[in-house]
Amino acid sequence: MKIGMRHGAGGEAMESVIKDVFLAKFSRNFGEVPLEMLDDAAVVNGVAITTDSYTVKPIFFPGGDIGRLAVCGTVNDLLMIGAKPVALSNGMVVEEGFEMEKLRTIAESMASAAQEAGVHIVTGDFKVVERGGVDEVIVNTSGMGRRHPLLDGNFEGLGRKPRVPWLADANVSDGDKIIVSGYIGDHGVAVLSGREGVGFETTVVSDVMPLNRVMETALRAGGVAAAKDPTRGGLAEILNEWAAKSGCGIYIRESDIPIREEVLSACEFLGIDPLTIGNEGKAVLAVAPHRAEDVLEALRRTPGGENAAIIGEVRKDLEFVVMETGVGGKRIVERPIGDPVPRIC
Amino acid sequence: MKIGMRHGAGGEAMESVIKDVFLAKFSRNFGEVPLEMLDDAAVVNGVAITTDSYTVKPIFFPGGDIGRLAVCGTVNDLLMIGAKPVALSNGMVVEEGFEMEKLRTIAESMASAAQEAGVHIVTGDFKVVERGGVDEVIVNTSGMGRRHPLLDGNFEGLGRKPRVPWLADANVSDGDKIIVSGYIGDHGVAVLSGREGVGFETTVVSDVMPLNRVMETALRAGGVAAAKDPTRGGLAEILNEWAAKSGCGIYIRESDIPIREEVLSACEFLGIDPLTIGNEGKAVLAVAPHRAEDVLEALRRTPGGENAAIIGEVRKDLEFVVMETGVGGKRIVERPIGDPVPRIC
Repeated sequence: MKIGMRHGAGGEAMESVIKDVFLAKFSRNFGEVPLEMLDDAAVVNGVAITTDSYTVKPIFFPGGDIGRLAVCGTVNDLLMIGAKPVALSNGMVVEEGFEMEKLRTIAESMASAAQEAGVHIVTGDFKVVERGGVDEVIVNTSGMGRRHPLLDGNFEGLGRKPRVPWLADANVSDGDKIIVSGYIGDHGVAVLSGREGVGFETTVVSDVMPLNRVMETALRAGGVAAAKDPTRGGLAEILNEWAAKSGCGIYIRESDIPIREEVLSACEFLGIDPLTIGNEGKAVLAVAPHRAEDVLEALRRTPGGENAAIIGEVRKDLEFVVMETGVGGKRIVERPIGDPVPRIC
Repeated sequence: MKIGMRHGAGGEAMESVIKDVFLAKFSRNFGEVPLEMLDDAAVVNGVAITTDSYTVKPIFFPGGDIGRLAVCGTVNDLLMIGAKPVALSNGMVVEEGFEMEKLRTIAESMASAAQEAGVHIVTGDFKVVERGGVDEVIVNTSGMGRRHPLLDGNFEGLGRKPRVPWLADANVSDGDKIIVSGYIGDHGVAVLSGREGVGFETTVVSDVMPLNRVMETALRAGGVAAAKDPTRGGLAEILNEWAAKSGCGIYIRESDIPIREEVLSACEFLGIDPLTIGNEGKAVLAVAPHRAEDVLEALRRTPGGENAAIIGEVRKDLEFVVMETGVGGKRIVERPIGDPVPRIC
């Protein structure tokens, strides 16, 4: 059997490879948030660790570039487990003949995103391969973070003991409200519009940004059980992961999901479900119901969270992710198998 | 200006890119072993962090594969700064059409190397790019380690206060003996022999292995000031780095450098200086002179260290790395500018 694009798409096909090829062999039960929990980051001895390789195409896109993306993506994965990002590594593989000026621009983007996120790039690796060995440049950023100083206080507001004392998927429970921190779909549409031959124009720019302030606000308000950034596979993917891991269904209302008109029309033009495309500056939170309005209000006063919304709730009486559509019908939001938009991160 | 193969070769051209493009922009002075020290790993809040992307070609070579290499290489970078490796991340970028069976074999190699090294692979990322987006597979492993429990005892044996309380290059001082833990050049020659069209056969296999036991032995014996694994750029590269960072020269004796006959003849056939090709299971140590014989004896009784040798010493009366040749002459061992053997790691 050969690897197909769907196996790297963040959906069901990818999970099957990861479980079958890697989890079956790698060690289990190591750390506070071990590998097999398949969260955005692992936690070992109080240190959160995460890694991501970025293959976005084009490397410069409306609203950002691969450097900014690599820093924000990894910073956000640390934040989503309840860590405060401290240090990043930068592993680059560059194609022979790549312009030094572009490399410089990418490094500058990384440096400024790191400053914005309050992290330090402390170590790196730089490899060059011959032409065709890689498509321009691949950036891997791995990150290390410490327990967020606001995490314990946040859990006090939860009103129940979390199953895992980090913002792990396993904490999602019946009744939790689902909050998204802003407009969905911007990143995927912006990257696509930057791609040659796709043939549409849009004013949408990527939402790529570090979520430090958004998460700080949410944790200070308190009652957050779990957090995830909807990257590959989009909102559809993470809601399905939460449903599977919590043993509950999730009910969402289409009319409450913040999506820009331009994103909707681009998705319509491309024949893509906006719920399945990736974001790089949004958090999705599962929040104890009695805290949800407070978290929402706090987010709306925070830069990057102005358009936050409660889009639904976790319900143990449902088996799937169900969406009440704008016209009053209901449909099951399926987990993406492949990826409608490859190489957006 | 365009990036050339030499810019990723671990030598002078690479250092100029790193200093000019990255160090100039990334934050300085962060952590106990900060980025600008350009050691094998950084240390932040007592946690050692390192990253490496592996692009070795072919991905299966005599004595190992890219999976084993990715685990050992990163484990060794942690060991070389004086850390005990704890956890690794695994970031893979795979080309569409890659055989699932090969991926499985690589994952198995990673798992068994991790077990050998006593580390856990705790987090990962899996991306697939279209054909031609990458040459088969690239593996990034980043690693996290804790201060080695034998490091403080080791420094007590040093007889002086180390400049940096880790095994950093900056600790190398006049009079230190240079020890290599075994045969030099095996990995580079083995990988080359596995490459199509190179046209030579050899029985040499890669030395790729985790250096936990070697370093444990050396630290227990005590008096190690600095350690480095001679990967890209080989022995010539790291001796020159040590010379530059210590402000001293280094004097080595060719006849004392352990090199296999087969490696020498392969290098002769290929027109390559064996001192400039990479190793993946060797440590080079700078050891206080009064401890050097003890460290050597201990290493020789340790699996992986049987062929260890003292090859020379640090000398402030010299300005360069100077080698006394087998026939009694002297030559300057220059720092490699490019790489005689690209993509060996």
